[in-house]
Amino acid sequence: MRAAVYHGRQDIRLEDVPEPSAGAGEVKLRVHFNGICGSDLHEYYAGPITTRTTPHPLTGIKNPVIFGHEFCGEVVELGAGVEDLAIGDRVAVEPLETCGHCLPCTSGRYNHCKLVAFHGYNRAGGGLAEYTVVKRRMAHKLPASLPLTHGALVEPMAVANNTVRRCQVESGQVVAVHGAGPIGIGVLLTLLARGVRVIVSDPSPLRRAVCADLGAQTVLDPASADVVSAILDLTGGHGADASVDAAGVPAAFRAALHSTRVDGNMVVVAIHERPLVIPPFDLLMPEVRITGVAMFCDDFPTVIEQMSRGVYPTRGWVSTIPFEDLLAQGFERLHRQEGLKLLVDVGRIGALP
Amino acid sequence: MRAAVYHGRQDIRLEDVPEPSAGAGEVKLRVHFNGICGSDLHEYYAGPITTRTTPHPLTGIKNPVIFGHEFCGEVVELGAGVEDLAIGDRVAVEPLETCGHCLPCTSGRYNHCKLVAFHGYNRAGGGLAEYTVVKRRMAHKLPASLPLTHGALVEPMAVANNTVRRCQVESGQVVAVHGAGPIGIGVLLTLLARGVRVIVSDPSPLRRAVCADLGAQTVLDPASADVVSAILDLTGGHGADASVDAAGVPAAFRAALHSTRVDGNMVVVAIHERPLVIPPFDLLMPEVRITGVAMFCDDFPTVIEQMSRGVYPTRGWVSTIPFEDLLAQGFERLHRQEGLKLLVDVGRIGALP
Repeated sequence: MRAAVYHGRQDIRLEDVPEPSAGAGEVKLRVHFNGICGSDLHEYYAGPITTRTTPHPLTGIKNPVIFGHEFCGEVVELGAGVEDLAIGDRVAVEPLETCGHCLPCTSGRYNHCKLVAFHGYNRAGGGLAEYTVVKRRMAHKLPASLPLTHGALVEPMAVANNTVRRCQVESGQVVAVHGAGPIGIGVLLTLLARGVRVIVSDPSPLRRAVCADLGAQTVLDPASADVVSAILDLTGGHGADASVDAAGVPAAFRAALHSTRVDGNMVVVAIHERPLVIPPFDLLMPEVRITGVAMFCDDFPTVIEQMSRGVYPTRGWVSTIPFEDLLAQGFERLHRQEGLKLLVDVGRIGALP
Repeated sequence: MRAAVYHGRQDIRLEDVPEPSAGAGEVKLRVHFNGICGSDLHEYYAGPITTRTTPHPLTGIKNPVIFGHEFCGEVVELGAGVEDLAIGDRVAVEPLETCGHCLPCTSGRYNHCKLVAFHGYNRAGGGLAEYTVVKRRMAHKLPASLPLTHGALVEPMAVANNTVRRCQVESGQVVAVHGAGPIGIGVLLTLLARGVRVIVSDPSPLRRAVCADLGAQTVLDPASADVVSAILDLTGGHGADASVDAAGVPAAFRAALHSTRVDGNMVVVAIHERPLVIPPFDLLMPEVRITGVAMFCDDFPTVIEQMSRGVYPTRGWVSTIPFEDLLAQGFERLHRQEGLKLLVDVGRIGALP
């Protein structure tokens, strides 16, 4: 079968590899779509980061590995003991394999598992392959009514959903989202569905237009506006009830910190390339709560339910590319900051509906 | 009258200055005790920081100024319109003058007043003087039963009380306090009174002994113990429900961040000398909430009530020094990290009871 295999920095090859089969407690999937994630770009241009040059302690896997962790597909084989899925079921994959024994695992915080492994980085297989095998518990059944493409969006929308949970806001409150990449857009859509008013700040005219079209109450251009003043003005001087740094640049971090209300949450979901530097009084005096997001935890069922209610329209920010164009139309285009969410049409399904 | 006047860095002089009198809405106090605060040391050795070389926008005051902002005294004169205090009443002073008009002021967050001024830094007068005049609303009446010294502890204990509020913990939970100076001790005592179990970490044997005597369930020496491992061991691997950085050094900040449970609060009350540097994944992955403390807000009445219930025993950490020994026995001794909380006996009251 065809697979995109990561050998190391700037070395991903489309190769023919043996087709896997499902072991006990596993399911084999024919992959439909696999999204390209910002972490994939980091791994490709600056890695190995999450992939390993020595065996992973839980899975034993090291490079080369099949890439891809945002994907969906249909069940084509059931391993021994799997009785609650059927051949032909469509599933989205939660790409974490956890040990199941450590304290985070046994206390319901499996995203903090001390041995966590990622499908598409350091497990056997990834979503950028015609077939892949995952543990039964990693597969979340999708309603038959969902467009096939949407299944590949469940994973990033789960990150967005966790981000929104950590904002701790309610209907009618105001959240400022700094950075409108796919995660920022997912945060926007999740917040809108909860009745929250959203201010989006992003230097890209395309991204601002997409967010305005999707329903953001205000869009700001940090290249031309004083974002902090604008947010204070829009919130009667109080600041946003919560802020999200989905940009990962120091200016966005600072703007978020200085435009969040007293006791409000500032949630950093972006991966900054450099350490965050906070002047002492910038931490002390605003009495803002700064926190991060560790992927997702029990967010997949919520996102799938929200998806079935139409919470995540894809217009303007999701497009598909053929598998064979993975590098030229995928990684390289995203690296130039063109395009938003690109789904690789691994299963030759065709364009978006 | 005698007053300690700050002229600039390492230049505090005991001088004879004119005695003030109370204007409308003000009260004149004969000062009993005034505590020396870490901020005073910063101002003395590294200032001007909070004092001003140009007029303060709210008060018009600039250096030289009378020092001292942790103090208590008795009312000796009532300005026009002050009818709810009597000559002879003992009061603790909340040293903030606020504008009363800005959004933080009108929304009950007066500690965030955009024009806030501090008695003892940038108002007319300070607690290190035989007499001083404050606004009526800055004076909080003390029960006659309290030892005179305790009034000077209300201000730092209000900072500690706000810190504890921001921990958001309940009886039976565990908080780790990193740094056992007077604020750390105040946090310890406030937590103990709420039924919280406290782990204290401090490199000073004296401070650890004081904290153990005051009731800390565990004391750790960060110079010899792996504090993070010890706290994880003591909390069944979960981490503390909240952590307080009352030390202000990078090692304490890191230890607190890495030993707080998922979703727990890490409250920074210490003033770090350098910017805080947080590696991106140290913020993202632990999902800890990091916040600061902006002095106090409505904490004085709570602290006075707690004080009257015996929440703040002074044994081992509070001592008094004569006014004339302010520099040699006060600033210089604290600068050498000898002694904990020193109260200047401005009113010649005598030693602790």
